[in-house]
Amino acid sequence: MSVIRQDPTTKAWVIIAPGRAMRPHDFQQVREPHVFAPRDESCPFCPGNEAHTPQEVLRLPERQGTGWAVRVIPNKFAVLASQGEPRHRAEGPLFREMDGVGYHEVIVETPIHNRTPAQMDDAEMEQVLRAYQARYRALQQDPRVRYIILFKNHGERAGTSLVHPHTQLVAMPIAPLQIRRKYEVAISHYDDTGRCLYRDLVEAEVAAQVRIVEETEHFVVFHPFASRVPFETWIVPKHYQPSFGQVSSEELSALAQVSRKTLLGLDNALGKPDFNYVLHSAPTEDETKPYYLWHIQILPRVTTIAGFELGSGISISTVMPEQSAALMGDIMTRMRSGRP
Amino acid sequence: MSVIRQDPTTKAWVIIAPGRAMRPHDFQQVREPHVFAPRDESCPFCPGNEAHTPQEVLRLPERQGTGWAVRVIPNKFAVLASQGEPRHRAEGPLFREMDGVGYHEVIVETPIHNRTPAQMDDAEMEQVLRAYQARYRALQQDPRVRYIILFKNHGERAGTSLVHPHTQLVAMPIAPLQIRRKYEVAISHYDDTGRCLYRDLVEAEVAAQVRIVEETEHFVVFHPFASRVPFETWIVPKHYQPSFGQVSSEELSALAQVSRKTLLGLDNALGKPDFNYVLHSAPTEDETKPYYLWHIQILPRVTTIAGFELGSGISISTVMPEQSAALMGDIMTRMRSGRP
Repeated sequence: MSVIRQDPTTKAWVIIAPGRAMRPHDFQQVREPHVFAPRDESCPFCPGNEAHTPQEVLRLPERQGTGWAVRVIPNKFAVLASQGEPRHRAEGPLFREMDGVGYHEVIVETPIHNRTPAQMDDAEMEQVLRAYQARYRALQQDPRVRYIILFKNHGERAGTSLVHPHTQLVAMPIAPLQIRRKYEVAISHYDDTGRCLYRDLVEAEVAAQVRIVEETEHFVVFHPFASRVPFETWIVPKHYQPSFGQVSSEELSALAQVSRKTLLGLDNALGKPDFNYVLHSAPTEDETKPYYLWHIQILPRVTTIAGFELGSGISISTVMPEQSAALMGDIMTRMRSGRP
Repeated sequence: MSVIRQDPTTKAWVIIAPGRAMRPHDFQQVREPHVFAPRDESCPFCPGNEAHTPQEVLRLPERQGTGWAVRVIPNKFAVLASQGEPRHRAEGPLFREMDGVGYHEVIVETPIHNRTPAQMDDAEMEQVLRAYQARYRALQQDPRVRYIILFKNHGERAGTSLVHPHTQLVAMPIAPLQIRRKYEVAISHYDDTGRCLYRDLVEAEVAAQVRIVEETEHFVVFHPFASRVPFETWIVPKHYQPSFGQVSSEELSALAQVSRKTLLGLDNALGKPDFNYVLHSAPTEDETKPYYLWHIQILPRVTTIAGFELGSGISISTVMPEQSAALMGDIMTRMRSGRP
């Protein structure tokens, strides 16, 4: 018998239909991973080709040497443009639109073409997160911006078009409906209980202990109760912090460690899967309100989004998160102890 | 400059970012289509292999001959089971679930293994729709069912696992959140105006004439104002009809014609793309209320759903629906006149 579960943060339903006892290799990617060189002459994100990208907006230097560690550039094929005003237009009562005003940037995470996030060391990952935060903080100052999303597409099934490790940032003049809804659920929980939904969720997960992958001083990593895909993984801070812009320098170092380890754990559990991750923050105008915690959602792309998901918004997963969390927790413990 | 548009039926936003003037071949699938035989020994949906499927729940006979034209069977890997009661359980205030009770059926559309919907004749397509409706009407009688969705995954990128043409039906004990939201938008429009949102939408599209692909006595085919993917195509009835269960026999014949032609038009416009289609109806308990019209949404899968879409719920398309509708309207006119 399958089970239908509700995501407490969105109220969306998920059907979890485990076909059989889960064996670790069931989700291992069967295809041979592509092998890439550390530098690709034709890659616009590789060192030496900086002139082929738009003018950079941020550069973090190498610790040793004279090169860069991380670069941020406007996306050459930006879906939003930084000039203009996002004024609503309407044609009759039904058709509403506005100009595509906002920001669409690319964070080039490393000068090394074939270095995946799981292969980075903690210091490299920390530089990436510092670049995220610097751009987040800069763009939230723009009064036209209602919401900022940071997301990574890793691998072909996750929608990437360039191999060189990069993250994208989109700063929008609208709050996405899905985010509005998610935020409303958090407000409603606060109205009912006087408490932050995400803090209650973290406490409930820590108390239950059955979906925890990793717990550190500042963060909890777990597979959510209503996981939408096998091995969906969330990283949530333990302390009150609606916006990623508010994370302290010390916490950012700690986040680098836990993120890198989690991505390496997923790599080991699933055989270097394609994945997306998304960094969620409160809408920029609501950053000082007590309803929300920023968080990271990692979605391995081991299945295809098909007609049922598109038509209903309901995901179908085939793994109970209690099982996948136990498996991944084991793998991370072995990684820590250096055992194979 | 891109444009941000709002879908009037969901209030969800879409970013349409056309990179350049659209040329018809921009979305043609470049890969060679697989070639399949009319019969496959190992296919459980091919004639002769009926014993390899669960016991059929409906069979429509061939017009001539003794075989079947359409078979409906329970899905062998059903995500919901027909036995049991969908009682809500809760663990604390956050974790809600219920047993996966409902129906998950497969409509085998034709005995011919390699016959795509676009290749069918009108009579074949009509039999498929009759099977949809017969199962819809049968399952809506079950008091445990809150929502019935019919959907088709055509091609690998659309998530299909079996080549033989088939549609899936899922009858659920919950109304999907996405459908609840969509329905609320329709109720809100009715409260504001005293009119059905979908009838107003059809009238507005017919008046504007810029996104219409085809108009018949009973149906309008158009590319929606906030198309989520290039060549997204909707088929909507012109007359008041909240539920697909209410479609008359005569209208079903007309729907077969217009659906088949539309799918053939998409095949010609995009070079036999992978696609999903979804048949939306009002929730089963709301079929006699004046808020909704059933409709079909066809989503060609020419792009990948990536981190931005998953994290924000906002789609990015690269074609203005006015352009794609003009192109597809031309193709359908040429099809009608027999010109190449």
